[in-house]
Amino acid sequence: MCRFLAYSGDAIYLEDLVCKPRHSLVRQSLQASEAKSVTNGDGFGIGWYGERDAPGVYREVMPAWSDENLLALCANVRSHLFMAHVRAATGGGVSRLNCHPFHLGRYLFIHNGQVGDFPRLRRGMEAQLSDELYDLRRGATDSELLFLLIMGRVKAGATVEAATRQVLLDTVDEMEVRGFTTPLRFSAALADGEQLWAVRWASDDKPPSLYLKPQPGGWAIASEPLGDDAEAWQPLAKGELVHVHDGRIERRLLCSG
Amino acid sequence: MCRFLAYSGDAIYLEDLVCKPRHSLVRQSLQASEAKSVTNGDGFGIGWYGERDAPGVYREVMPAWSDENLLALCANVRSHLFMAHVRAATGGGVSRLNCHPFHLGRYLFIHNGQVGDFPRLRRGMEAQLSDELYDLRRGATDSELLFLLIMGRVKAGATVEAATRQVLLDTVDEMEVRGFTTPLRFSAALADGEQLWAVRWASDDKPPSLYLKPQPGGWAIASEPLGDDAEAWQPLAKGELVHVHDGRIERRLLCSG
Amino acid sequence: MCRFLAYSGDAIYLEDLVCKPRHSLVRQSLQASEAKSVTNGDGFGIGWYGERDAPGVYREVMPAWSDENLLALCANVRSHLFMAHVRAATGGGVSRLNCHPFHLGRYLFIHNGQVGDFPRLRRGMEAQLSDELYDLRRGATDSELLFLLIMGRVKAGATVEAATRQVLLDTVDEMEVRGFTTPLRFSAALADGEQLWAVRWASDDKPPSLYLKPQPGGWAIASEPLGDDAEAWQPLAKGELVHVHDGRIERRLLCSG
Amino acid sequence: MCRFLAYSGDAIYLEDLVCKPRHSLVRQSLQASEAKSVTNGDGFGIGWYGERDAPGVYREVMPAWSDENLLALCANVRSHLFMAHVRAATGGGVSRLNCHPFHLGRYLFIHNGQVGDFPRLRRGMEAQLSDELYDLRRGATDSELLFLLIMGRVKAGATVEAATRQVLLDTVDEMEVRGFTTPLRFSAALADGEQLWAVRWASDDKPPSLYLKPQPGGWAIASEPLGDDAEAWQPLAKGELVHVHDGRIERRLLCSG
Repeated sequence: MCRFLAYSGDAIYLEDLVCKPRHSLVRQSLQASEAKSVTNGDGFGIGWYGERDAPGVYREVMPAWSDENLLALCANVRSHLFMAHVRAATGGGVSRLNCHPFHLGRYLFIHNGQVGDFPRLRRGMEAQLSDELYDLRRGATDSELLFLLIMGRVKAGATVEAATRQVLLDTVDEMEVRGFTTPLRFSAALADGEQLWAVRWASDDKPPSLYLKPQPGGWAIASEPLGDDAEAWQPLAKGELVHVHDGRIERRLLCSG
Repeated sequence: MCRFLAYSGDAIYLEDLVCKPRHSLVRQSLQASEAKSVTNGDGFGIGWYGERDAPGVYREVMPAWSDENLLALCANVRSHLFMAHVRAATGGGVSRLNCHPFHLGRYLFIHNGQVGDFPRLRRGMEAQLSDELYDLRRGATDSELLFLLIMGRVKAGATVEAATRQVLLDTVDEMEVRGFTTPLRFSAALADGEQLWAVRWASDDKPPSLYLKPQPGGWAIASEPLGDDAEAWQPLAKGELVHVHDGRIERRLLCSG
Repeated sequence: MCRFLAYSGDAIYLEDLVCKPRHSLVRQSLQASEAKSVTNGDGFGIGWYGERDAPGVYREVMPAWSDENLLALCANVRSHLFMAHVRAATGGGVSRLNCHPFHLGRYLFIHNGQVGDFPRLRRGMEAQLSDELYDLRRGATDSELLFLLIMGRVKAGATVEAATRQVLLDTVDEMEVRGFTTPLRFSAALADGEQLWAVRWASDDKPPSLYLKPQPGGWAIASEPLGDDAEAWQPLAKGELVHVHDGRIERRLLCSG
Repeated sequence: MCRFLAYSGDAIYLEDLVCKPRHSLVRQSLQASEAKSVTNGDGFGIGWYGERDAPGVYREVMPAWSDENLLALCANVRSHLFMAHVRAATGGGVSRLNCHPFHLGRYLFIHNGQVGDFPRLRRGMEAQLSDELYDLRRGATDSELLFLLIMGRVKAGATVEAATRQVLLDTVDEMEVRGFTTPLRFSAALADGEQLWAVRWASDDKPPSLYLKPQPGGWAIASEPLGDDAEAWQPLAKGELVHVHDGRIERRLLCSG
């Protein structure tokens, strides 16, 4: 399990959410409050959109709490749309290749959760990738694979929302067919440079925590409230999707399951 | 392309081959003489057999030339059978997961070369892995995959020699069927704790360099002569297999192709 | 603050203390019980004596809990005298140069604690180093400096015990002269390849925890009991020195202070 | 020895100089043309000024040629004043603490060269630091120390130019007094967020290479010409200082020596 945050709105310095709050993501890397793993020290990553076509991405295997590069970057990079992630490895090994965010073209993706019985499901899931996306697989995590599967459907014309729903349902179907009962848990955020989607879901009743908070000029989404203002952070319901685009926010159910 | 060495014989300190010779493997990481890449600084690894069932393995993404841990380990670890590898990445990214030696149970494997057009061949090759071995895939290199394919045949009862030959031939067949002409190059060593196999092969006429030298009480195999004694190092012929076991050495053709 | 262990006795695999116990040092890197810092993820190191003049040392900036190299090394290296350390940085930055054990010739040293007001004391303490030892300073920690100061006295002919006592007293004197009141805390172990010394001390009444346990054929010293056998671990008294040599153990006061 | 570049002018993406030119700094990390060391793979760093008071700094021990973070950063960060450095370690160990640029407040500094006989000169040079700067010493390189010595004089009111000259002359004086003959070599750049200074100097007749090239809207300074336009790069004379400020450039002698 992991911790993450995402932001969409007026351009702010990344440090305003990643480093400075009392219970910032950097702080959560050392001591999370609502995660299965208190320590999220198996690498981290940030991704942000600026003026270029492709987002900037910085991923590192060190714990976030001790990385001076991260502090310096977050103090100097300003963005209207960014995400950050601290990892507690559940599988795949500690490697930059397994650190979030994953990226493809304009898209960024971060994930907290896991595909239950992934070692036994991995092969069937990878078989669903197109040749082109199969070739882009670099690591061994369920998270990277879920992202590539979603991207496959998006490239085929689906909306991000429909693609995400279908990948989750397909995976759960496969789990049921094969009699696997370890749940699929999926709190995640995905962005394309202009829009941001965040989802909180699980195949059981324990979706990883995810909160939403209006900011001056934008919205923040995070695994845990970042400051002393816990009451200002609204938990997403299980199955809820948050979609930030064109300066407004929509909330609706992604899956009722 | 990469550089490597392997040793079988009376127990010696790893440093005697890895660090101390004038043109040692550590030196080759900075400046190889016969490699496609002069610099082999994209990580390294050592693997050795001691008294335990499984070999010791140390892999790191730093260049070998600057790693003090490597020097200290090689000065303090003594083994009758070991291998070492310095990497020049051709694909898959710089990650410990992509560093050699790869290991599975008692087996260690190092490789210098490449599967031509690997991005287009990868999927079909991975499809040949058993479920069990598919699940053990951690990185994204052709080398790790070749090792797992060989291990699959060994687990099914083949000798290391037959397994290696068959994997090479199968891969070349697939390349020909699909019209790929970039060659498969394969200089490699594999060990099981008691025996050592080394092969120099390519589907064209440019197999990566590989040499054999008798040592006091053993044999050394290396991509390049390690010292000023170049004349003492005998190049393997293309297709030649060296098999060290029970205190003696056998040389024969693995593939005539 | 940090966590560490040391062992002297019949040769055992490092993993028997470092990795395998239920509350092993690797486990303590993620979740210590008696330390000021629960997480000790700012690098680690092991040092061991084998057949060579100089000990083997492996230091890394990654957290110990996720380092596969550490597991493999500890499973394959056997020693009659070794130490291991996991770090929670209090100053100096996360760098191999600041990881324990520090080593000089035959000597190894690990430390848990801190010199209070070190930034203001550092210069005066470094001024006491001989030119030769000054030149060997690589990092910026109080721990490395304490080790070099002790080594300076040992090179000048003092016993390890007397050298350690004098360095501690000199440092406290200097703190008092300059009116610094943040305490000096010093739980540490030092070895020379044959003998092992461990000390628990502080200038106030809060010396970092340190325990001793007889093992079959030897003695283990650790910041925290390593297993479910908490009652078998005897806490050292404040100021107590444990000296293991020639197959026996002596316990006496290093400093009464 | 190392390779570096610096830029002052209209804001450009860092990649335009660091990554994209045919003989870019990233390329020079693998294969420099005019350096004592062909390979400059012992870490690297970039520093840039944006809208904040302190510059952004990213330093890493990996070789620049394989670091995907560096590519992504340089593609997304735009600056009117920045510098970059690839290191070939001559002393002090491979550590982020020893990577350039060094920074203090608004100031950034990169250096190519060395203080001859530094191990024997280090102590006397460090003794000249004020308590405040002494405490900021993190690594063990001559480069960091030269920077701190210059900063000490700047804080005391000297211009950057006068401070640099005096530190060089003082060091050479000390070398002569003590009879050390290994030369002091110093090609370096220093910036304060608005102004950029670059110097090429040595106590003998072999100052490390340094070139200047007018760019559209600015000036680039580099250890080696970055592209196929070698003739457009003017070598600095020995002792020459380049000072870029207020949109114009001045060239004069820093030291005649």
